[in-house]
Amino acid sequence: MPHTDTARLLIACDDQPGIVAAVAGVLAAHGANIISLDQHSTDEEGGRFFQRTVIHLEGLTARRPELEASITEVAERFGMDWSLHDTSKRKRVAIFVSKYDHCLMELLWRTQRGELDIDVTMVISNHPDLAESVRSFGVPFMHIPAGDKAAMEARQLELLQGNVDLVVLARYMQILTDDFIERLGAPVINIHHSFLPAFIGANPYARAKERGVKLIGATAHYATADLDEGPIIEQDVTRVTHAESAAELQRRGADVERYVLARAVKWHAEDRVIVHGRSTVIL
Amino acid sequence: MPHTDTARLLIACDDQPGIVAAVAGVLAAHGANIISLDQHSTDEEGGRFFQRTVIHLEGLTARRPELEASITEVAERFGMDWSLHDTSKRKRVAIFVSKYDHCLMELLWRTQRGELDIDVTMVISNHPDLAESVRSFGVPFMHIPAGDKAAMEARQLELLQGNVDLVVLARYMQILTDDFIERLGAPVINIHHSFLPAFIGANPYARAKERGVKLIGATAHYATADLDEGPIIEQDVTRVTHAESAAELQRRGADVERYVLARAVKWHAEDRVIVHGRSTVIL
Amino acid sequence: MPHTDTARLLIACDDQPGIVAAVAGVLAAHGANIISLDQHSTDEEGGRFFQRTVIHLEGLTARRPELEASITEVAERFGMDWSLHDTSKRKRVAIFVSKYDHCLMELLWRTQRGELDIDVTMVISNHPDLAESVRSFGVPFMHIPAGDKAAMEARQLELLQGNVDLVVLARYMQILTDDFIERLGAPVINIHHSFLPAFIGANPYARAKERGVKLIGATAHYATADLDEGPIIEQDVTRVTHAESAAELQRRGADVERYVLARAVKWHAEDRVIVHGRSTVIL
Amino acid sequence: MPHTDTARLLIACDDQPGIVAAVAGVLAAHGANIISLDQHSTDEEGGRFFQRTVIHLEGLTARRPELEASITEVAERFGMDWSLHDTSKRKRVAIFVSKYDHCLMELLWRTQRGELDIDVTMVISNHPDLAESVRSFGVPFMHIPAGDKAAMEARQLELLQGNVDLVVLARYMQILTDDFIERLGAPVINIHHSFLPAFIGANPYARAKERGVKLIGATAHYATADLDEGPIIEQDVTRVTHAESAAELQRRGADVERYVLARAVKWHAEDRVIVHGRSTVIL
Repeated sequence: MPHTDTARLLIACDDQPGIVAAVAGVLAAHGANIISLDQHSTDEEGGRFFQRTVIHLEGLTARRPELEASITEVAERFGMDWSLHDTSKRKRVAIFVSKYDHCLMELLWRTQRGELDIDVTMVISNHPDLAESVRSFGVPFMHIPAGDKAAMEARQLELLQGNVDLVVLARYMQILTDDFIERLGAPVINIHHSFLPAFIGANPYARAKERGVKLIGATAHYATADLDEGPIIEQDVTRVTHAESAAELQRRGADVERYVLARAVKWHAEDRVIVHGRSTVIL
Repeated sequence: MPHTDTARLLIACDDQPGIVAAVAGVLAAHGANIISLDQHSTDEEGGRFFQRTVIHLEGLTARRPELEASITEVAERFGMDWSLHDTSKRKRVAIFVSKYDHCLMELLWRTQRGELDIDVTMVISNHPDLAESVRSFGVPFMHIPAGDKAAMEARQLELLQGNVDLVVLARYMQILTDDFIERLGAPVINIHHSFLPAFIGANPYARAKERGVKLIGATAHYATADLDEGPIIEQDVTRVTHAESAAELQRRGADVERYVLARAVKWHAEDRVIVHGRSTVIL
Repeated sequence: MPHTDTARLLIACDDQPGIVAAVAGVLAAHGANIISLDQHSTDEEGGRFFQRTVIHLEGLTARRPELEASITEVAERFGMDWSLHDTSKRKRVAIFVSKYDHCLMELLWRTQRGELDIDVTMVISNHPDLAESVRSFGVPFMHIPAGDKAAMEARQLELLQGNVDLVVLARYMQILTDDFIERLGAPVINIHHSFLPAFIGANPYARAKERGVKLIGATAHYATADLDEGPIIEQDVTRVTHAESAAELQRRGADVERYVLARAVKWHAEDRVIVHGRSTVIL
Repeated sequence: MPHTDTARLLIACDDQPGIVAAVAGVLAAHGANIISLDQHSTDEEGGRFFQRTVIHLEGLTARRPELEASITEVAERFGMDWSLHDTSKRKRVAIFVSKYDHCLMELLWRTQRGELDIDVTMVISNHPDLAESVRSFGVPFMHIPAGDKAAMEARQLELLQGNVDLVVLARYMQILTDDFIERLGAPVINIHHSFLPAFIGANPYARAKERGVKLIGATAHYATADLDEGPIIEQDVTRVTHAESAAELQRRGADVERYVLARAVKWHAEDRVIVHGRSTVIL
C-alpha cells in the first residue's frame, strides 16, 4: 500500500449524466493519477450515485487546498456530499469491551501485525479484567465501571471527544444512549452475535439452538439509537449441526464474530463504506 | 447404493445406558450386519437419544416379521419410538407448485438422473402453466384451481390419501390448513425463500434488499400449522452485494432454494431426518 | 436490464495517468451517460490498466459510428485495445457435449428462464444420446460421431464459422486441436471437473478420493492448446468427507460444475471477462 | 465437556459382521455408558472398519485394567488395532515455528481460552524473534538456530523424546528428515499454505497469483517423509479476485491457515482422526 501522496475521494449525489467525467476531469487538471475508481448507482427511481476514487498526487499536502477548491466547485454543481482522506493519516480508534476478549484481541493483534491500518488509541471497559492484556499491546486501558448511566457516558465522552475517529463496540454488553452517539460525533461500529435480522436482541445462540438452525452468524453494523437496526457493513455464517450445544455454538460463533468485525473495521478504515439509508454501499 | 436386503432402523427414546448394545445385540442375533450406525444424544437434562442404523439382512422380506418382533421387545424395554424402512421401497412423493418452476424442475431432474431416490407420483398446481414441463418427465400433472379453500383441499386429499408418503411444497404460494396437514397423514416439506427466522413471511428478497443484508438464503422445513415455524431440515446462504437489485437477489436466491430443497428431500428420502421438538436431528 | 441504447466498452492498455478522464470525456462529449464503470490496474512494474464501462446513449445504433471514431482517436493516443458491445445483441453460443448432460441442461434451462442472456444456436455432440433433450428446448442438435479427428473438426468448423461468438465445452470429452481453436476465431470456455491446478488431467474425482482431500471443486476456463492451462474464469468448491465414495464425489462435483460453468458463461456473455496473460480480470 | 471418568475408544479393523455388537457388549458388560459412537466402513473390496466411541465409566482409572483386558480379547478375535484415551489426560504438544507468528499465536491463544484441550509444553524455533510473545503465555521457548541439520535435530530430539504426544509445525520453514520423524515417535501435523495438491512446494501464493486462481486455501496434514504428501486432516479456501496482489493473497491465506491448523489440532486432540493409507477418517 503506497501511503505517501495518495488520498481517497468519496462522493455521493443524486444520479445524473456526466459525474464521472466531471470528477475525472478535475483530477486530471490537477495532475492527480487515478489508482482505482469504484462507483455504484442505485437503480431506484431518482437513484443515488456513489464513487470512491483513490488518487496519487505528488506533493499532496501542499497542493491539497487548490484540489479541494476545484472539487468544491464541481460538488456544488452536482449537489455532492464528498470527503477527501489522506491515506497517510490513520484513523484513531477507541475500542469498548466488557469481559469477552475475542473480538478485542483480534483487533489488537491485527493492528500490531499491520493488517489493520488504524491507531488504537484507547480501550474502555466497564470491567477491569482485560487491563493487562490490553496494556501488553502498549494501548491505554480505561476502566469506567457501570453505574449511573449519565455519569458513565459523561466520563467516556471526556476521554473520546476530539480524540477518536471511530468507536468499535467489541462485544460491549452495554447500550449506548442516542445522546451519547450524537455528542460523540464519530461513527460507532458494533458486532452483533447473530445473522441479523434473525435473533435480534439477547441470547441469540441459545435461541438459534432452540430453533434448530443449520447456520449461525454474526453481523457488524453501524450503531444507531435502535441498536440492532443500524446499517449492516458485513455478515457471515458458519455451518452447525444438531450435535453442537448452545455453548459450542457460542464458541463457533465467536470465530465468525472475530472475522466479521475485523473485516468491517478494515473496510471502514480504508474509507470503503458509504451509508445509504438503512444499508451500506461497500466500494 | 445396495438396495436389496438392506433396511434403515430409526429409533428415538429417553437417554439411558445400554441402548446401543441392546439394539446391536438384537441385530447380531438375527444375523443382520450393521453397514452404518449414527447416533446422537442431546446433553440436556433428561436428554433424548436418537439412532439411525443401516443394516443388511439376507432374505430381509421373509425374515422381517421375526426381526420386528425382537425389536418390539427391546423397544418396549427402553420406551423407544422406532421404524424400519426397507431401502428398496422408494417413497412416493407429490409436489405442489404454483408458477415458479425452478424448485420443481430441480426435483424432477434429479429424480430422473437417479440422484433422488424417490418416485414422483404426481404434481398438483393451482395454475395450469407447468403442465407440459411436468408431463414431459412422464409425471401426472393435476390442475386444481385456487378457489374455495375447503373444496380445493378436499380434492387434493382425494388424490393424495393413501397414495403418497411425502408432500413437497416447491414454492407453492398457498397456505395449507391445519386440518389438511392432519388429514393428509404424511409429512410435508416446504421451501422458504429466506434464512429463517430472518424475514419470516412475505417478500423476503425485497426486505433483504431494503435491510442491506450481505447474505441471502433459503430454508427447507417440515410444514406445520404455523407455516414458517416448522422444524428446519436444511438452510444455506449465498453472498450478495449492494450492487444487486431485489430482482437479482431473487434470481440468486432461486439457486439456493433449488439446492436446499433438493438436499432436504434427499435426506428425508434416506430416512436421515428425525424431528425433535422444533428442531431436527440429521443422522 | 435495460437493453435498448446501452453498450459495454472494454479497454485494456498500459497503465498511465489520465485514462479514466480521457475516456469519460469522450463519452460525455457524445452525450453518453455512464451507468457503471469498473477498472483495475495491476500493480506490477509497467502495469496494465483495464476498464469496463456500461453506457447509455439515445439512438445508439445511429450514433455509434461517430462515437467509435472518437474512441479510436483516444485509443490510439493511449495504445488501447478496445471493443464496444451493443447489449441488445445476444452472443450466439454453440455447446459441445458428449454423454454427461448436467452442464448442458443447466445452460439450456437458465437460457430458457432468461437468466443467461445468450442465444444457444446449436448443440454438437459425438454421441446421439442427448438429441431429444436438446431439441425439446427448440435448439438444433448436430451429431458428429468421433472418428478421424481432422474430418470431425472440419465438419464442426463448417457448422460454426461465422455462426457463433462463443463455444462452450459442457463436459465434452474430446480434445480440440490448436488448429481448430485458431480457425474457429471465437473464444472457447471449458469446464474442468477439479479445482485446477490440483488434479490436472483425467479422473480427478477418483484421484481426489484417493488423496483424501476435504474439498472438491470445478474450474471454468478459456480453452487453449494446453487444455487444463487456459485462463481461469471461475472456480468453486464444496466440502466432502471420508464417508463419500468416488461416485458420490462425482455426483457432488457435478453440482459445482453446473454452477461454475453457468457463472462463467454469464460473465462472458456480459462482457465482464478480460484475459490478462494466463489469468483473467473480472469486471 | 465432562472429563472425569470418560474415555475415547478408537478401533480399526477389516470390515466384518458383528463388530459394533461385540464392542457394545463388552462396554455394557463393564457398565460403561456409550456417550457417542461414530463409525465408518469403506465400501472398497475387502473394506476397512473404523469406530470412535466415547464412554463414561464410574471409577475409570481403577477399572481400566479389567476393561482393557476385555477389549483385548474382542480385539484379538476381530484383528483390531485399538487405543483407549482417558479424556482427562491432555496431549502434550510442542510447536515448531520460524518467523511467521500467526499460526503459533492462534494455537497459544485458543489454548489459553480453553478452546483447545492441549498442553503446549514448549515452542522450538530456529529464530529468536518470537521468544517474548511465547513466554508471555507462560510457555517455554527454545531457540535452536539452523545450522548442521544432524546436530540441530539431535538437540530437538533431546527436548522432545518422552515429553510430547504431538509436534505441530506452525509455518516452520525447515524440512524434517525421515530419521527425525521416525525417532520422534509422535505424530507431526504440518500446515501447508495452499489447497494441496495444487501448488505443492514453495511460494504457493505467488504461483496462485500468477495462475489467476479464484480461491486460495490451506491444508493441515500429518507430516511424512515426503512433506506435502502426508494424509490430509483439514482444508479450507477463501475467495479472491484479480484485484488482490500476491502479498494480499498471503495475508488472506494466513487467516485460512490459522483456522485450518486450529481445527486439525483440535480434532487430533479429541482423538477424532484415524489415518487410512494416504487419507484420514474424521469421526
